[in-house]
Amino acid sequence: MRTAAALVIGNELLSGKIQDQNVLVLARTLRAIGVELQRVVMVLDDVGTIAAEVSALSSTHDAVFTSGGVGPTHDDVTVAGVARAFGVPVARSPEIEVMLRGYYGDRITEGHLAMAKIPEGARLARNPAVPWPAIVKENVWILPGVPQIFAMKMPLVAEALGTGRGYVSLAVHTTLDEGNLKEHLDRVVSAHAQVDIGSYPTFDDVRYRTKLTFDGLDEVAVTSARDALLACLAPDSVVAID
Amino acid sequence: MRTAAALVIGNELLSGKIQDQNVLVLARTLRAIGVELQRVVMVLDDVGTIAAEVSALSSTHDAVFTSGGVGPTHDDVTVAGVARAFGVPVARSPEIEVMLRGYYGDRITEGHLAMAKIPEGARLARNPAVPWPAIVKENVWILPGVPQIFAMKMPLVAEALGTGRGYVSLAVHTTLDEGNLKEHLDRVVSAHAQVDIGSYPTFDDVRYRTKLTFDGLDEVAVTSARDALLACLAPDSVVAID
Repeated sequence: MRTAAALVIGNELLSGKIQDQNVLVLARTLRAIGVELQRVVMVLDDVGTIAAEVSALSSTHDAVFTSGGVGPTHDDVTVAGVARAFGVPVARSPEIEVMLRGYYGDRITEGHLAMAKIPEGARLARNPAVPWPAIVKENVWILPGVPQIFAMKMPLVAEALGTGRGYVSLAVHTTLDEGNLKEHLDRVVSAHAQVDIGSYPTFDDVRYRTKLTFDGLDEVAVTSARDALLACLAPDSVVAID
Repeated sequence: MRTAAALVIGNELLSGKIQDQNVLVLARTLRAIGVELQRVVMVLDDVGTIAAEVSALSSTHDAVFTSGGVGPTHDDVTVAGVARAFGVPVARSPEIEVMLRGYYGDRITEGHLAMAKIPEGARLARNPAVPWPAIVKENVWILPGVPQIFAMKMPLVAEALGTGRGYVSLAVHTTLDEGNLKEHLDRVVSAHAQVDIGSYPTFDDVRYRTKLTFDGLDEVAVTSARDALLACLAPDSVVAID
C-alpha cells in the first residue's frame, strides 16, 4: 500500500474566511489510484512551521502534497518552507521564468518573476493537457491553493503515482441505529481485517438511520465483508445496497 | 492571545467520501471570541494516532477541539484516544447514562450505553439552550462529527472561552495583480507587525484581481494598516473597501 499526506497552508482557512476544497479533490484522486491519504495538516503561513511539517510528513509517507502559499507576495512562503525542509536554497526555475515572460510580456515585474521560485533541485511535472507544470521536490508536490488550479494538477498526480488499482467502496444503508448494529459490526470487523468498515449515523435523511461502508483494495474481500454484515440484518431493515 | 487546535477524525474524510464542514464553523466561532486557531490535523480512526495527536496539541495550545469518532461502534475511538493521551481509563458517565436511558427507554442496548463513555475525570459542559452536553477533558473538547450537532455545541465553546474581544477583519478588493502589489505590500507588512495581512488572487470574479485582507485584535492597528496600503494604490484600481 502506498501512503500520502497533505499539508494545507493558509491563514485564510484557519481564520474561517474560506473553506478548503482541495482535500476532497486530492482524496478522491488518490483513492481512485490506490494511494491511502493518511493525514492532513492545516497550518498558518509560517515558513518554520511549514518546513517542520514537510520534513515530518515527507519522511513518513510515500508522497506529500502541499496546497497554497505559492504566489509572489509576502504570505506565500511554501517554496521557502519546502526548501528549508530539504536543506536547500530557493532557486529560480529557468523554464518557469520563460513561461512567465511569455505570459506577461513587457508588463512583467520582479513580483511576477517571484512565481518562478522553486526549491533547488526540484523537478517540474507536466503533460500536454496541463499547461502549467507542478513543482516536485523529492516526494513533495507543491500545489496551488486556488481550487480551480489545484484540480487542474490532479491528472499529473494520477499519471505519476497511479498503481493501476483503485479502492473498492461498497455501502449498506439501514434503518437500524448504531446501538443496535454494534454487536453485528464487531463480529464482522474482527473477521475481515483487510477491509476498512465504517458506520455513519444520519440525522437529516428519513429513509435510513445508518450508512455502513466497506472499503479496500481487494474487491473479493470487500464484497465478502459487506455480504457477511448483510446476512446479520433483517431484510426489511435494509434500504439500499451499493 | 489565546490559541487553539483542532483534531478532525474520520476515515470517511480522508477517503474523500464526505467533506469536512466543522473546521469552518469552529474557525468562525473562535475568531469571533478572539481565539486564534493555529493548526488543524485530520487523521484516520486509529486510537494510537489520536492519542499521540491529542497529547501533542493539548500541550502546545490553550484549547483543543476534536471532531468525530464519538458514536458507539468499533470505528468510534476518540474517547479512548483522549483517555490514553492523558493516561486515564475510559469511564462511564452517570449523567450521560441517565440521559440515554431517558431517551431510549426500554429499547436501550449495551451499544447505546457505549455513548456514555468518557475519559475518566472529564467534565460535562452544558447550558440550558444546548440539551446534550459536550465532554471536556482538561483543555480538550470532544465534539461530534455530525455537522448539525457539532454546530449546536458552539455556544458552549463561546461561553467557556470567550475573551470579550473578537478579531477585526478588513479588506480591499483591487484590479491590480499580486505581481504589481508585492512592493507596496512588503512595505506595509513590515511597518504593521501586529496586523495579519493577506493577499488572495481571484480567478473567477471579473470585477477584481486581488483581495487584500487585514486582521488583528486591535481595531486601530488594523484600520491603520489598511489605510496605509490604500494610500499606495491609484483610486481607480480600488473596487471595494470593507
